[in-house]
Amino acid sequence: MTAPTQTTRIVLASRPQGAPGTDNFRTEQAPLAPPGPGQVLLRNRWLSLDPYMRGRMSDAPSYAPPVQLGETMVGSTVAEVLQSNSPDHAPGDLVLVQNGGWQTHLVVDGASLRRKLDRDSPLPPSTALGVYGMPGFTAYAGLHEIGKPQPGETVAVAAATGPVGATVAQIAKLRGAKVIAIAGGAEKCRYLREELGVDVALDHRAKDFAEQLRAAATDGIDVYFENVGGHVFDAVLPLLNDFARVPVCGTIATYNANGALPPGPDRLPALMGQVLRQRLTLRGFIVGDFVKLYPEFLREMGAWLAEGRVRYREHVVDGLENAPQAFIDMLSGGNFGKLVVRLGD
Amino acid sequence: MTAPTQTTRIVLASRPQGAPGTDNFRTEQAPLAPPGPGQVLLRNRWLSLDPYMRGRMSDAPSYAPPVQLGETMVGSTVAEVLQSNSPDHAPGDLVLVQNGGWQTHLVVDGASLRRKLDRDSPLPPSTALGVYGMPGFTAYAGLHEIGKPQPGETVAVAAATGPVGATVAQIAKLRGAKVIAIAGGAEKCRYLREELGVDVALDHRAKDFAEQLRAAATDGIDVYFENVGGHVFDAVLPLLNDFARVPVCGTIATYNANGALPPGPDRLPALMGQVLRQRLTLRGFIVGDFVKLYPEFLREMGAWLAEGRVRYREHVVDGLENAPQAFIDMLSGGNFGKLVVRLGD
Repeated sequence: MTAPTQTTRIVLASRPQGAPGTDNFRTEQAPLAPPGPGQVLLRNRWLSLDPYMRGRMSDAPSYAPPVQLGETMVGSTVAEVLQSNSPDHAPGDLVLVQNGGWQTHLVVDGASLRRKLDRDSPLPPSTALGVYGMPGFTAYAGLHEIGKPQPGETVAVAAATGPVGATVAQIAKLRGAKVIAIAGGAEKCRYLREELGVDVALDHRAKDFAEQLRAAATDGIDVYFENVGGHVFDAVLPLLNDFARVPVCGTIATYNANGALPPGPDRLPALMGQVLRQRLTLRGFIVGDFVKLYPEFLREMGAWLAEGRVRYREHVVDGLENAPQAFIDMLSGGNFGKLVVRLGD
Repeated sequence: MTAPTQTTRIVLASRPQGAPGTDNFRTEQAPLAPPGPGQVLLRNRWLSLDPYMRGRMSDAPSYAPPVQLGETMVGSTVAEVLQSNSPDHAPGDLVLVQNGGWQTHLVVDGASLRRKLDRDSPLPPSTALGVYGMPGFTAYAGLHEIGKPQPGETVAVAAATGPVGATVAQIAKLRGAKVIAIAGGAEKCRYLREELGVDVALDHRAKDFAEQLRAAATDGIDVYFENVGGHVFDAVLPLLNDFARVPVCGTIATYNANGALPPGPDRLPALMGQVLRQRLTLRGFIVGDFVKLYPEFLREMGAWLAEGRVRYREHVVDGLENAPQAFIDMLSGGNFGKLVVRLGD
């Protein structure tokens, strides 16, 4: 095999105003230097597409710096080692690359690769991007550190067939909570009920969604795992019980908003009044805040997956060239399960 | 001394729409039954007036039931025992009465009185209604359980000459934080700087208050103890640091709001986005949620007060008949220090 000297990559061509379009991305070839001392040459095999990437396309202040124009789009990957000058890696190894990027190849320091994947594991390597990776850990950490569902309490979660939401729903069930799972469309709701065993699955696109949620939350809502915002949050708010906890890990419904505030009335003072009266906890987090929990997550989630107590579903798209459209579709719920791009040879 | 057979009391005559007026209150005489077995006859000596009472005048859902029309207004008091059929109380004892009410006399079960005041203490008994009572405990519990100021962090608090705010400011200083104290008017600010030793005191009535706050918060704000809401909260929001904590114990600025939401734009989605991006914690509480801490509070605060490390200021109004106007004035900052009503003979 001749070592590749070029990578095919997708860069940020322009910043989206509102919903991104394919014209915000550009595919290009870039030269690939041979790996230096301690470095490895990687071929990406699986690319993770996640909602947080929408944030990185904007230059508004956030917890992470934006992707610069002309830079490769960020994204975790599972990659295969092609060449190695690192004592810890050999050709053929599969590794998790925190920012492998939307590209076919890259060269990194071997020391930057923290997790090597077991090629003999019954779990497909792509799960290291989903249920057994960052999204699954987001669910785990947010529930453990902030949501803290108690047996008999009611947990509500939206985007519930996505990798975060589905894991939240299943962990909450394992902890003895009643789970109200919210997703878009009848097929996703059927999956939630029949495959994941949630107590209630609701289609947020239903005209009477707020009424359905009220009817389902017979004992109110104790934990709302916030990963969408928008009209789901609006419907949840009046149903929260005293002392409810709201881990806030995403507001995908507003990611495409254009910076302008929506029209009134201004509900901020009323929200603060409700926080006081009901002694609510609203707390934002990103997984990076809870790295200490990561080994515990790998152990506990590994056992749950092996025992079939936590299930997962992947939405596989083939070919790097299809990443932009798949990403755009995901932002409006077009995926069904964890969205990953399979990169061929 | 002949035992009184009547109490003079102030009842809720009507529910206020917006700011309360004196016509929402009515003074009347009511018969007083002699104390039964285990009961005590009390004469109120000090009545506490606190912002939370505004909430009880409305029948909107809240953490406590409203005062019913025609019922005595709620309020903690320090009372003297006049007659006792309780083995634990003797005439002349001073006791803290959780709901002694806006009235001169009352009869209660001796067992309901949890705290007897030391007549020989150098602390005036009225402090059991302020710095060494519920307001002081609110400050203590909110800082310890939610705010958790670390040495070198910046704590901001409004209504800072009130009994909660002043105690927050002083405890935060004792914990090694930089304190930005906010109050209404130059005299209160002078007091905060010179008497309480805060790092910065700002007048929220200044036209350029938001700019002054920004200039003062050179390292941002790590803890905002929220007891006012309104334009102070608006000015604090953009200055919060990542991982900031906001104990929410009052939103006095909105207590008089009429139920209608203020005009837009709607800042709720932006607030949730900020909670996420900055991993903020917003958490409401009332002191009753933290009763377990009460003995620790009495011990630690007792020592601070004895050593002069925590100071307090009282705003004394004489005569029950002046309670309604004093209460109304307090809601717009007319008091300077903990507002208590001294009840004469």
